[in-house]
Amino acid sequence: MPWYQNTFRLPRFERGFHLITHTIESNMPEIQKIKIGLAHVFIHHTSAALTINENADPTVRLDFEEHFTRAVPENAPYYKHNYEGSDDMPAHIKASLLGNSVTIPITNGRLNLGTWQGVYLCEHRNHASGRTITVTIQGQEANGE
Amino acid sequence: MPWYQNTFRLPRFERGFHLITHTIESNMPEIQKIKIGLAHVFIHHTSAALTINENADPTVRLDFEEHFTRAVPENAPYYKHNYEGSDDMPAHIKASLLGNSVTIPITNGRLNLGTWQGVYLCEHRNHASGRTITVTIQGQEANGE
Amino acid sequence: MPWYQNTFRLPRFERGFHLITHTIESNMPEIQKIKIGLAHVFIHHTSAALTINENADPTVRLDFEEHFTRAVPENAPYYKHNYEGSDDMPAHIKASLLGNSVTIPITNGRLNLGTWQGVYLCEHRNHASGRTITVTIQGQEANGE
Repeated sequence: MPWYQNTFRLPRFERGFHLITHTIESNMPEIQKIKIGLAHVFIHHTSAALTINENADPTVRLDFEEHFTRAVPENAPYYKHNYEGSDDMPAHIKASLLGNSVTIPITNGRLNLGTWQGVYLCEHRNHASGRTITVTIQGQEANGE
Repeated sequence: MPWYQNTFRLPRFERGFHLITHTIESNMPEIQKIKIGLAHVFIHHTSAALTINENADPTVRLDFEEHFTRAVPENAPYYKHNYEGSDDMPAHIKASLLGNSVTIPITNGRLNLGTWQGVYLCEHRNHASGRTITVTIQGQEANGE
Repeated sequence: MPWYQNTFRLPRFERGFHLITHTIESNMPEIQKIKIGLAHVFIHHTSAALTINENADPTVRLDFEEHFTRAVPENAPYYKHNYEGSDDMPAHIKASLLGNSVTIPITNGRLNLGTWQGVYLCEHRNHASGRTITVTIQGQEANGE
């Protein structure tokens, strides 16, 4: 039962919520070897997040952005950490609300997501560069190892 | 150190927060074999969530529902994804705020939860049917394997 | 590939957000043995949480406290669970918003956090005592076991 771990860089995404399920799968082809196991996806940043949500209608992802922009205000008068731009402190808070990793069951060589589930990159900065992700998987292989 | 994975369907729950710790345990009796390990509980939906919170006083769970109903409004004028009912888009947002999986240590054959901790199903739709859960566990067995 | 699990008690912290990365590492020195693996950090309470965020400027942690105090009000008129103090029910809600565990990749004997990432204890009670944490790690050791 070997472990596999791969670190890669996502391309730059605009502020908002973006589906990256296929990028994760293509950067960790060893998922196909695992019969039963888990995949852990981790983002190495504090102003972007990962979550799992609806993978079909793109307006869901637009509504996420609208909601979080209102729920975590920019330029709140009580922010003390404001020298990195008005989007920075809200980005930190949103990152912790949404979380910086997701763990997904692997079943018969595939990420065992529900029909409507996909992995979102939640980009909270206005002008971020690419983001670094580490995927770690382990499980029981089909050959019994 | 074998892996165990089981997928099962919860009965239909009303909108709100519901304790499901015992349902998880009864659907994964192999927890009892594990001396040290982890249990990962995953919900295959985007409008319901899992979280861990207070397992004793049912008013805590009522207050959760009241809070989240206010914190994530229905019929917000900026929602674009509104053709599945007024409870749908808020349900997606609440699902990502609370998270779609929990991971719990296993110690000496039991879920090693705190005295006051239980696993909640967070049902955010008004008229959902049952929800599908996958539990994946792995660990060191008492016999040393 | 052995499993390691250690339960320990944090010292009492004031209400607010506090860096505990080094406390985790010093209570689980076996991280150094793991070449590729995962560390799961779990808090056994329902009024405190764990999250990963910015590890440098302490004003970020002060702003977290200000934000969450406003986002989850005390003494909300609709709270039914109010006999444990005005900070209790908000503490439960904040605990589920932030989450009660974090999972971190281990790479070459170290927690593979981003440059700016640290683990926060999120203490939501005004007068808590110490909090109990369980760290569980597993992975492939440098000697190939």
